[in-house]
Amino acid sequence: MEAGRIGRIRRYAELIVRKGVNVQAGQRVVVFADIEAADFARLVTEAAYDAGAAHVYVNWSDEAASRTTYLMADPEEFKLVEPWRVEFYKYYDDINACYIFLDSDDPDLLSDVEPERIYDSSKSSGVAFYDHNNAISCNHVRWTLAGVPSGAWASKLFPDIPEEEAVELLWEKILDSSRVYGDPLAAWDDHDKMFKEKIRFLNGAKFSELRFTNSLGTDIRIGLPQGHFWDGGSNRAKDGVWFFPNIPTEEVFTLPDCRTVNGRVVASMPLTHNCVTIENFELIFEGGKVVSYKAEKNEAALGNILNLDEGARMLGEVALVPHDSPISRMKLLFKNSLYDENASCHFALGKAYPMIGSYDRSLSKEEADGLGVNDSITHVDFMFGTADLRVTGTTSDGKEVTVFVNGNWA
Amino acid sequence: MEAGRIGRIRRYAELIVRKGVNVQAGQRVVVFADIEAADFARLVTEAAYDAGAAHVYVNWSDEAASRTTYLMADPEEFKLVEPWRVEFYKYYDDINACYIFLDSDDPDLLSDVEPERIYDSSKSSGVAFYDHNNAISCNHVRWTLAGVPSGAWASKLFPDIPEEEAVELLWEKILDSSRVYGDPLAAWDDHDKMFKEKIRFLNGAKFSELRFTNSLGTDIRIGLPQGHFWDGGSNRAKDGVWFFPNIPTEEVFTLPDCRTVNGRVVASMPLTHNCVTIENFELIFEGGKVVSYKAEKNEAALGNILNLDEGARMLGEVALVPHDSPISRMKLLFKNSLYDENASCHFALGKAYPMIGSYDRSLSKEEADGLGVNDSITHVDFMFGTADLRVTGTTSDGKEVTVFVNGNWA
Repeated sequence: MEAGRIGRIRRYAELIVRKGVNVQAGQRVVVFADIEAADFARLVTEAAYDAGAAHVYVNWSDEAASRTTYLMADPEEFKLVEPWRVEFYKYYDDINACYIFLDSDDPDLLSDVEPERIYDSSKSSGVAFYDHNNAISCNHVRWTLAGVPSGAWASKLFPDIPEEEAVELLWEKILDSSRVYGDPLAAWDDHDKMFKEKIRFLNGAKFSELRFTNSLGTDIRIGLPQGHFWDGGSNRAKDGVWFFPNIPTEEVFTLPDCRTVNGRVVASMPLTHNCVTIENFELIFEGGKVVSYKAEKNEAALGNILNLDEGARMLGEVALVPHDSPISRMKLLFKNSLYDENASCHFALGKAYPMIGSYDRSLSKEEADGLGVNDSITHVDFMFGTADLRVTGTTSDGKEVTVFVNGNWA
Repeated sequence: MEAGRIGRIRRYAELIVRKGVNVQAGQRVVVFADIEAADFARLVTEAAYDAGAAHVYVNWSDEAASRTTYLMADPEEFKLVEPWRVEFYKYYDDINACYIFLDSDDPDLLSDVEPERIYDSSKSSGVAFYDHNNAISCNHVRWTLAGVPSGAWASKLFPDIPEEEAVELLWEKILDSSRVYGDPLAAWDDHDKMFKEKIRFLNGAKFSELRFTNSLGTDIRIGLPQGHFWDGGSNRAKDGVWFFPNIPTEEVFTLPDCRTVNGRVVASMPLTHNCVTIENFELIFEGGKVVSYKAEKNEAALGNILNLDEGARMLGEVALVPHDSPISRMKLLFKNSLYDENASCHFALGKAYPMIGSYDRSLSKEEADGLGVNDSITHVDFMFGTADLRVTGTTSDGKEVTVFVNGNWA
């Protein structure tokens, strides 16, 4: 075992490969990485081969070139998706490749891009990649999302120190939040036990409704569909192999009945989506749909999320994260949902994971609609948890059970 | 106009975009670049948008990850090409995109990879991309190949100075050889006139055979097909737009009748192909085919080129470059065919550009075979020009004309 930072970073790469996607011998692996994260992507590539991958394809992107394209390309270009991109995902989905997404986004990269271009791009890619996104969200394939510091991202979080130091500090936060200490593989097996305990409780309670209230002004009731189940930590893919879709993860989550969501939810953290940060916003739901919204900053970006399709105005995920989760206790706004959603209770707008019965069960379109399983081309998490959040569950026989008090498990 | 090195590099990017592929308003552009060449690829991206491109897609590669894959992937993987890659080229060929290939290869990157893996990869991609390679070599689409220094490449050429200085020096050599002085766009219009003059002479002479001899031991006769024409400098694509396929370029070239090549050719420079450098080699042709070959270094790599298919053992190009060409006078072995082939007379093994009649004329398979137009999945240039090379042409009525003496135009 190597000493110091580099040793930890290598173990993080190994964690992503062996626990994240859980690469199997002979499997193909696709890695998505920005070219600024090349050093780490190369470590992941080597770790995947060491784990027995038959082939690793790194799909590189470059924020600088992407930004130039967002600013300078013909606006009509954002309305189309090149057919080879669809073939790309179809090929790898069909051969049961696994996907490693390394996220190093500058949270403000696209802040001065015309929102219409981002909207068109989200819409066209959401439609074109629907099948692949479905394979991901239903865990038909194994995938994992993990973060890698970039200079631009780190400098946004730590603006008062030199970029190089900021990157070092963000590495430390990422490694700490990802539980990369000692033997991270064993640490993650341990960590997984906590999820399984919480899930046992929630699945036993069979709540038909959850109510969330706090002093920020959130007061919202969420119906849960018959037969829903909760999950968290490791997931089982279609091929029966276990994996962790997110590194880190602290949430347990299920799907709402998207037709029975009523009330007001006030965001407790900014939301960074598509490299634009939306601040101080709230949503009001009636009969499942967002009927009004406002944001102090980048309201247009929020509107564009909600207007993507009908499902984007409805909820697709309810996730419980204690206010004293290790990431929350870091008291750092990462400006990246992978981390921020693990510091706070959150909902997602858009597509629901079809968590009815069990992962093995596939729902027909009619069954899904009948249970209020939201469908959409998007899925966007946003955070509303606070230190005084209360969550109350109602069981099918009308009993009320306190689930969270003062932001934590009751 | 900006001063100094950066200004020159920007003008080089502009040269590639405006003279190289000659981007037209509303056109899509595909740029191939290694992530180590990101700074320059970004300049090219901006220059392409400035020239009116509707969209620029940068297809990144990474030598480090590629090398890891060559060393560690399952050997069977090199025998297949993912179908989405074929769709990729088909899509861009069909919409008449133009292609910018930025070459920054480490000439020895794959020197310790099992030659079989490189052979399998060349063979499978040559077969899978046959249509696209044909669109490129027949100028159905516009494309250009240009160099960008990388640390690894520069250090191989200038091993005695620090890497950073080596890169600076290689930039200087690349910019000089690419005629990036003052207004490079005007310089290239001027440069093009030289080609048109030489072509006029060669096309007027209508040689039926060329004989090449020198003191290295080369003595070879090359039949030229009826109706062949010579070209060099700017080319006209199927859409009628002119472009320069190579920056730099100093050659005039035509195709041989691949069945009537007889004699011995001794390489005058190493040949770097697929990131392996083959040294001190010679080929003996009988009736068009290589019947024996040897190389002091990497003979297996040479054998693998020759064994790719039947056409790989026969010639597809004859190119004349004076020994006092500006690149030759630099007295630098670039270990990259783009530069080295413009310092020396050369042949290519493999696929011929179908230079019969005119670029507008398309040949049926029968016509092509009848004229000895070589077909192959590969096309590999190798250099044999020397300071004492003599080239003698024979006209259809048996007259001998001296074309080159002492390595230069007679």
